[in-house]
Amino acid sequence: MNGMNFNQHCLDLQLQNQSGLCVGLDPDLARLPEPLRHDNALACVERFCKGIIEATASYACAFKPQIAYFAGLAAEPVLEDLGRWVKTHYPNHLWLLDAKRGDIGATAEQYATEAFDRYQADAVTLSPYMGLDSLTPFLNREGKGVFLLCRTSNKGGDDLQMQMLNHGLRLFEHVALTAEQQWNSTGQIGLVAGATYPNEIASIRRLAPSLPLLIPGIGAQGGDLLATVKAAQTNFLINASRSILYASAKSDWQQAAAREAQTLQTAIEEARAQ
Amino acid sequence: MNGMNFNQHCLDLQLQNQSGLCVGLDPDLARLPEPLRHDNALACVERFCKGIIEATASYACAFKPQIAYFAGLAAEPVLEDLGRWVKTHYPNHLWLLDAKRGDIGATAEQYATEAFDRYQADAVTLSPYMGLDSLTPFLNREGKGVFLLCRTSNKGGDDLQMQMLNHGLRLFEHVALTAEQQWNSTGQIGLVAGATYPNEIASIRRLAPSLPLLIPGIGAQGGDLLATVKAAQTNFLINASRSILYASAKSDWQQAAAREAQTLQTAIEEARAQ
Repeated sequence: MNGMNFNQHCLDLQLQNQSGLCVGLDPDLARLPEPLRHDNALACVERFCKGIIEATASYACAFKPQIAYFAGLAAEPVLEDLGRWVKTHYPNHLWLLDAKRGDIGATAEQYATEAFDRYQADAVTLSPYMGLDSLTPFLNREGKGVFLLCRTSNKGGDDLQMQMLNHGLRLFEHVALTAEQQWNSTGQIGLVAGATYPNEIASIRRLAPSLPLLIPGIGAQGGDLLATVKAAQTNFLINASRSILYASAKSDWQQAAAREAQTLQTAIEEARAQ
Repeated sequence: MNGMNFNQHCLDLQLQNQSGLCVGLDPDLARLPEPLRHDNALACVERFCKGIIEATASYACAFKPQIAYFAGLAAEPVLEDLGRWVKTHYPNHLWLLDAKRGDIGATAEQYATEAFDRYQADAVTLSPYMGLDSLTPFLNREGKGVFLLCRTSNKGGDDLQMQMLNHGLRLFEHVALTAEQQWNSTGQIGLVAGATYPNEIASIRRLAPSLPLLIPGIGAQGGDLLATVKAAQTNFLINASRSILYASAKSDWQQAAAREAQTLQTAIEEARAQ
């Protein structure tokens, strides 16, 4: 990256790949394609993830492994291997570790080691609940990025994130504004904003015009793509996981995943042009 | 546990062990005792953690491995083994996985598998930022517990947790009240409340009289023990990690850890009696 900051790098790769699509890797053993189920579990997960990446790379800008699926299967060695493999074969794609970590000082240092050294991530998702000093060990890694949870796509996201603060912003808006104005001095912070709430993405974009957005909730979760793209404006990655990964459980699983990825990429670019 | 809920079980074990002490397991390779440093790293971490547990079990009610330290070292197999070993040899101590996870639906299910099945945890720390539905997969495990981050002991904890909401509570107080009144119907939820802020522990206790508290910040972080115990009142675990783990780097490391644990346990009981 030659000293370039993560946020600019993220935007550059969207232009270079002509894609704002992030393919989420949530390998669920029970849903893997039939032809893969004969291997042992870890080999199966590895073949599945590599097969999805190969099939969708032409349409994607980023891949986002969800570490929980690997942890649930004791498949950390597979995730390590995937990180090395992606950085070797797909150097112009982002490798985003979805981990939603959040801890202090020496513990956060260990999580930074986990994300950036062990799994080769370009960026990692984090929770903002513990504040700036829980982010610092990640921000000390030059060129690396952090996507902070801001407005999540689930129903329970309302419980804290929609609380109105006494200065007139809701909590998720406070996170967006603080990230933009106080925490992003080095160009390393982005925000997670769910597509199930496009009006709130618009609000986030007003408060945080310079931050990249990672947007889950399109695909299986049913968010409105056109409204989402209009609200996000620029420098955004729209994530789809299940709708691509499990497009077919038969021998055509790679072709089906490629078709879903291409359809979504095209739809994103058309929405952008409207 | 014969159907007993976690919160009651947590209190019962404090009485049975005559201890409110939780020993945190944060194995930092650079600080391990000199006599252990000749093994390979993972064997060394395992010997260290077992040695600390053996030395301090008489004074402790709970052990709390911090998963980040294991993840940073690719030492998940050690943590799995420790979980099995503790549940076999110390069935009357709590095994609390400090992971601060927080995610939705199917992903949270994977994290529940990680904590409860893979690592044998009795309870796990979670972030409340994504709301109730991010807790549900954990609460569906009968007898298991969850400690939600409420007021953390670090400086950056102020950034979100101290925000005043327009209904007159600060965010951490809203978490405490919501956990007590809406989320704890099955007696499985506790709160993390840092000892660096005893006045805020008192506020949490007023809003959440029935929830167990997990209190870091005593020891290396310098919280006021007497004020903390008075504020927490009952059903609390006071965690100390570094002050016990690294009490000596020489061949007397187990004796030094035992001494520190005993001193702290005694001080907690004396504070309770005042």
